[in-house]
Amino acid sequence: MSVKLDTRYLSKFIKPFELDQISPFVKTANDILHSGKGSGSEFTGWLNLPKNYDKFEFEEIKVVAEKIRKNSDILLVIGIGGSYLGARAVIEFLKSNNYNTLPKSTPDIYFVGNNMSTTYINDILRICENKEVSINVISKSGTTTEPAIAFRIFRKFLEDKYGKDKAKERIFCTTDKFKGALKKLADEESYKTFTIPDDIGGRYSVLTAVGLLPIAVVGINIDKLMRGAKLAQSELSNENLDENDCYKYAAIRHILYNKGKEIEVLESYEPSFMMFSEWYKQLFGESEGKDQKGILPISLTLSTDLHSMGQFIQSGRRNMFETVLLLESQDNDIVLNEENGNVDGLNYLSGKTISFINRQAALGTILAHTDGDVPNVVLKIKERSEEELGYLIYFFEKACAISGYMLGVNPFDQPGVENYKKNMFALLGKPGFEKVRIKILNKIY
Amino acid sequence: MSVKLDTRYLSKFIKPFELDQISPFVKTANDILHSGKGSGSEFTGWLNLPKNYDKFEFEEIKVVAEKIRKNSDILLVIGIGGSYLGARAVIEFLKSNNYNTLPKSTPDIYFVGNNMSTTYINDILRICENKEVSINVISKSGTTTEPAIAFRIFRKFLEDKYGKDKAKERIFCTTDKFKGALKKLADEESYKTFTIPDDIGGRYSVLTAVGLLPIAVVGINIDKLMRGAKLAQSELSNENLDENDCYKYAAIRHILYNKGKEIEVLESYEPSFMMFSEWYKQLFGESEGKDQKGILPISLTLSTDLHSMGQFIQSGRRNMFETVLLLESQDNDIVLNEENGNVDGLNYLSGKTISFINRQAALGTILAHTDGDVPNVVLKIKERSEEELGYLIYFFEKACAISGYMLGVNPFDQPGVENYKKNMFALLGKPGFEKVRIKILNKIY
Repeated sequence: MSVKLDTRYLSKFIKPFELDQISPFVKTANDILHSGKGSGSEFTGWLNLPKNYDKFEFEEIKVVAEKIRKNSDILLVIGIGGSYLGARAVIEFLKSNNYNTLPKSTPDIYFVGNNMSTTYINDILRICENKEVSINVISKSGTTTEPAIAFRIFRKFLEDKYGKDKAKERIFCTTDKFKGALKKLADEESYKTFTIPDDIGGRYSVLTAVGLLPIAVVGINIDKLMRGAKLAQSELSNENLDENDCYKYAAIRHILYNKGKEIEVLESYEPSFMMFSEWYKQLFGESEGKDQKGILPISLTLSTDLHSMGQFIQSGRRNMFETVLLLESQDNDIVLNEENGNVDGLNYLSGKTISFINRQAALGTILAHTDGDVPNVVLKIKERSEEELGYLIYFFEKACAISGYMLGVNPFDQPGVENYKKNMFALLGKPGFEKVRIKILNKIY
Repeated sequence: MSVKLDTRYLSKFIKPFELDQISPFVKTANDILHSGKGSGSEFTGWLNLPKNYDKFEFEEIKVVAEKIRKNSDILLVIGIGGSYLGARAVIEFLKSNNYNTLPKSTPDIYFVGNNMSTTYINDILRICENKEVSINVISKSGTTTEPAIAFRIFRKFLEDKYGKDKAKERIFCTTDKFKGALKKLADEESYKTFTIPDDIGGRYSVLTAVGLLPIAVVGINIDKLMRGAKLAQSELSNENLDENDCYKYAAIRHILYNKGKEIEVLESYEPSFMMFSEWYKQLFGESEGKDQKGILPISLTLSTDLHSMGQFIQSGRRNMFETVLLLESQDNDIVLNEENGNVDGLNYLSGKTISFINRQAALGTILAHTDGDVPNVVLKIKERSEEELGYLIYFFEKACAISGYMLGVNPFDQPGVENYKKNMFALLGKPGFEKVRIKILNKIY
């Protein structure tokens, strides 16, 4: 296996027999998931995706990505939730959280349509001035408010800049195969389209065209990414916990939740993993946070946040556990040199690499927090590579599905996301929401 | 008052008599804080800072900032925790979370020395190539591992680029007035220094030279920032909850915590507020997260995260409350136009501004989450201005101090931050940590 679970720091919190006793329930969850008959089973297309994706479209993605790379300084990715988090996570994980300001030959990527901040939109418009720009708009329906607004604004920007006809060659739609407002518009305007499969929900869609086009644009090898996921698909169906770290991780989460650990802190020691944590938060939060249940997923970047949230983790309310992503190798490492005078007292580190020091910080922290009664789950990641990340994505996706079923929820729906929308439509006076509007206005005034 | 608390959405969760009954305890906390005799009182210099800051140094900061603006493309700010979060929060809040890529005449700002990621450091080194660079290194002691390592690396970068003598004119140290490794080095090398006051801890230091120098470099008016804080200092000492929203906010947090709401989600609808939330997380998390107590502070940017964590907030485990920062006005607003065909169904919004729509999203969300049994505290912010932000900073600082005393903790220490460091030093073989090292190695192997 590629991603490896290290449970050695859990001995204080979980006894081996607890894993034995939970194991039949993991098997049950596995049966439900693979039977295709569990709740939400219509959205389990991701399960077999790494082996069963649309090879023809996959090659098209590469061609279009190359075209965008050649004629664009900036790719605007319009999408919200699962329609942007996966791509952003992969790009920053493999490239940099400073990707846009790095010297490079590939286009900058800006994610828009995930908020309705005037300041944000104006900033991006200013950044796009005098630049060659393309758009990838990602929306199943085409009517979700945030991306639809952004698409109006930035499509107009493109049309004003290039003219309506030339703009068409710079607009790429990832949407439903047959229906919906965006598909309709794309057909009318002859925009190139890619498909969001019907059987894969937003938070599970990173390895479809939703994620793959922006990912390919920055020059990431999507073949290798899929290869990693494929390996995970092969390896992570074994019901034996000792031979399946993914299921073991799901089991451990379940045990810790039953002990009152209701918050999971995903941590890494690499700023470039920050958006991966945001992707993980949607995956688990949206899958499990329902029916008044669920482990609240939060994230920290260390050692940075040891100097802000470290105090709380070490000694605050004991209602959390940590899952630590440990990167096992480092390219282009930096060696610390001896310095005359040793004023800063760092000479004891001379000859050591930064990544070695970073690793000892991680180890020291895991031990300190364990002493502070916070269970630490460790996931070892071999390297920052496409294969490894593809594996990791599938690992978390499957762990989440198993975990959700064990919690007794439908891991694939998100009914709660509609509530704010309904109120917002009513407040905005959208036709069809007149009754809700009266009810709401009475509440406010 | 500038920042205003809106409690109308709390009526379902807190009865008026509850505030009456907690009010004497707020008074007690106020007495402890202002007596200068409470625990941690040696670190309450921030309380009187807006009226009592070093005016001479303040003017020097402006002069140096102007110098850096003139001769630098990039200012590297080296610091961790309170030595970077405040400046970063203010810069992004008032400028942009895309500040570095916006067209502008002021230097880019990169925050380094807050992690030990080789990838991150290498990226910043690449970004600095062929650019004019200055450094502001911020550390009380000068020996904290993360910033000390970064200072070694980036000082060498400057010296290689400009020569040792010319580099000196580009290095600015914010450190202890008299002692410590960084002060010693600065004196030896004749680096210009600014002071970290003895009576102000890291998380309360944003309005000292720690925050003010980087803030001034990007062209933010620090006079106005201090003026806002000064107004807050004048207004926020009233013990009557009805006349002091800061204390009322502290009281509400306390009441909600006593009802089992152990997580506070700070939210805004502006991506540029994201780092302000990180500053808030350190402020409250490090102040309250001790002795196995404390409200866990987390943050979301909406409506973005309504499409990732929204489901959990709406319907997951009911152990949280939300504090919503609502921005009340918007410059350069964008009006949505009518569009032929109305394929995306947005025409019902034509003629409306984006900020109006954003506001209705906020309102709709507050109502939806309240219906979902999550208490919503609302803080109204008049505008994105220096004065308003200065006020808001002081508002949170004081609310945190009152809140911490009411929780029965010392709001001004952070003993838990040392635990990981001790282990890390032991693992790294730092002289003086030999005994801990043996203990730790036995734990690992």
